[in-house]
Amino acid sequence: MEKIRVAIIGYGNIGQYALDAIETAPDMVCVGVVRRVPSKEGFPELAPYKVVSDIRELGKVDVAILATPSRLCEEYAKEYLALGINTVDSFDIHTSILDYRAALKPLAEAHKAVAIISAGWDPGTDSIVRTLMESMAPRGLTYTNFGPGRSMGHSVCARSKEGVKEALSMTIPTGEGIHRRMVYVELEEGASLEKVTEAIKSDPYFAHDETHVIPVESVDALNDVAHGVNLVRNGVSGKTHNQYFEFDMKINNPALTAQVLVNVARASMKQQPGCYTTIEIPVIDMLYGDHEKLIGSLV
Amino acid sequence: MEKIRVAIIGYGNIGQYALDAIETAPDMVCVGVVRRVPSKEGFPELAPYKVVSDIRELGKVDVAILATPSRLCEEYAKEYLALGINTVDSFDIHTSILDYRAALKPLAEAHKAVAIISAGWDPGTDSIVRTLMESMAPRGLTYTNFGPGRSMGHSVCARSKEGVKEALSMTIPTGEGIHRRMVYVELEEGASLEKVTEAIKSDPYFAHDETHVIPVESVDALNDVAHGVNLVRNGVSGKTHNQYFEFDMKINNPALTAQVLVNVARASMKQQPGCYTTIEIPVIDMLYGDHEKLIGSLV
Repeated sequence: MEKIRVAIIGYGNIGQYALDAIETAPDMVCVGVVRRVPSKEGFPELAPYKVVSDIRELGKVDVAILATPSRLCEEYAKEYLALGINTVDSFDIHTSILDYRAALKPLAEAHKAVAIISAGWDPGTDSIVRTLMESMAPRGLTYTNFGPGRSMGHSVCARSKEGVKEALSMTIPTGEGIHRRMVYVELEEGASLEKVTEAIKSDPYFAHDETHVIPVESVDALNDVAHGVNLVRNGVSGKTHNQYFEFDMKINNPALTAQVLVNVARASMKQQPGCYTTIEIPVIDMLYGDHEKLIGSLV
Repeated sequence: MEKIRVAIIGYGNIGQYALDAIETAPDMVCVGVVRRVPSKEGFPELAPYKVVSDIRELGKVDVAILATPSRLCEEYAKEYLALGINTVDSFDIHTSILDYRAALKPLAEAHKAVAIISAGWDPGTDSIVRTLMESMAPRGLTYTNFGPGRSMGHSVCARSKEGVKEALSMTIPTGEGIHRRMVYVELEEGASLEKVTEAIKSDPYFAHDETHVIPVESVDALNDVAHGVNLVRNGVSGKTHNQYFEFDMKINNPALTAQVLVNVARASMKQQPGCYTTIEIPVIDMLYGDHEKLIGSLV
């Protein structure tokens, strides 16, 4: 069996967990890591791997896992697709997914490559669950309840306020897709908690949610990558009401995101050229193993 | 828009609920029902529809929904596929799914038709959830806990025992895929509860499960089509342990089965000729609506 040759682009949280997932995948090999500054310093696990600044230094690459911030995905994806390399990412700006897909599709088709976008857990696997639930009860309401877990966007916003040294915003589900924000702040010396609280609560990021600002000595001491989701749908199958569906998970956030990226990297090898979201590919394509055996054990 | 022309084969529980689901699908029209004895008696809702004994009396049919017992699916599927008509079914004999798929595949391909098999809720939508969970944590354990709900197979087995007039076997989940059987029996006059209990408990259908046999005056008075499932996986994403996933539902059993059949009838129009299980088709294909709009609202 020829292994799928995978490159990791970016080596932050997601990139590091992606290496874990590639190393445990029997059908894949990591051919290297692409970093702006191609250094292995501080990462002993990279000793056996090439670390480069340009993907072309890695020889043949089948798939590039874009473990970069969402706003950089398009630039990298376009570069790699033009080289005929499949790309996968966990692009998570929900409102821009259709535009992003439209931008990559013609390029992927022209270069006989495959891009699978927005493939983390939300968007990503949650999207599959939402679609499945909607199919089972076409009329009804779905609620996506996030957390408890860190929100990167909200944490960055809180940290940007005057007087805040470090901040962590936790997303707490209170039901029906409504969330409470628990914002833990490390204040700069002499900063006023009252003013910081007001600045955070009045920001559009927080203005519509119940928000609590809590001063702490060390934000780092609260650090935990746990996250979760509770997806609920009540609806109508045919003409029959009160059909109830629920999906729950409690997970290490970057570990799951990285695993999903590795799964869609595998799936990218089985699709026709083009650009796909997770709901557009068969779930079986994400798994390693003999197709018929998988059907036998999972259907 | 040209509507998908759907025929219902068999008009028991599932067939009746399938008509509900077709009538509420904006992109489908029911072109008729096929029954061995083509009668509408007792079914006022069939007044506007053709009821025939041979599908060829219905004119152009795009998809046939096989709402028949599992053991009859293959015969009907082969007949209709040979006519170039797509077929969908909820064939639920888990151990025979691969053989059934292999039997239909070449026929479907030869006649440029599509068969989607084993598309109820288990096998069917549960299979998608199991596959998705396994992809998110490739190592680990999944438990499928059924019920509380009626088991047709176990009820039929209990009813077959001497002295039993009518029986209902409820499947009760006790965790980790282990189930308790609560068997409600209506005894024939003079029958011994002790003997009936022994006959049921020693049957291979019940011998390995905790089984309780309870005499009742009327099994019909207990009739309820509620069912449910609780699917649990704990496993490892990459090298990160303790990833927890859970899927729950509480549903009207035939209404959900019928809705899934209608969903895959729609999906059958979008696949290449061949035979598929639910995990081999993109979930988005099961939904009515504009492809991009669905991506925008569900991803």
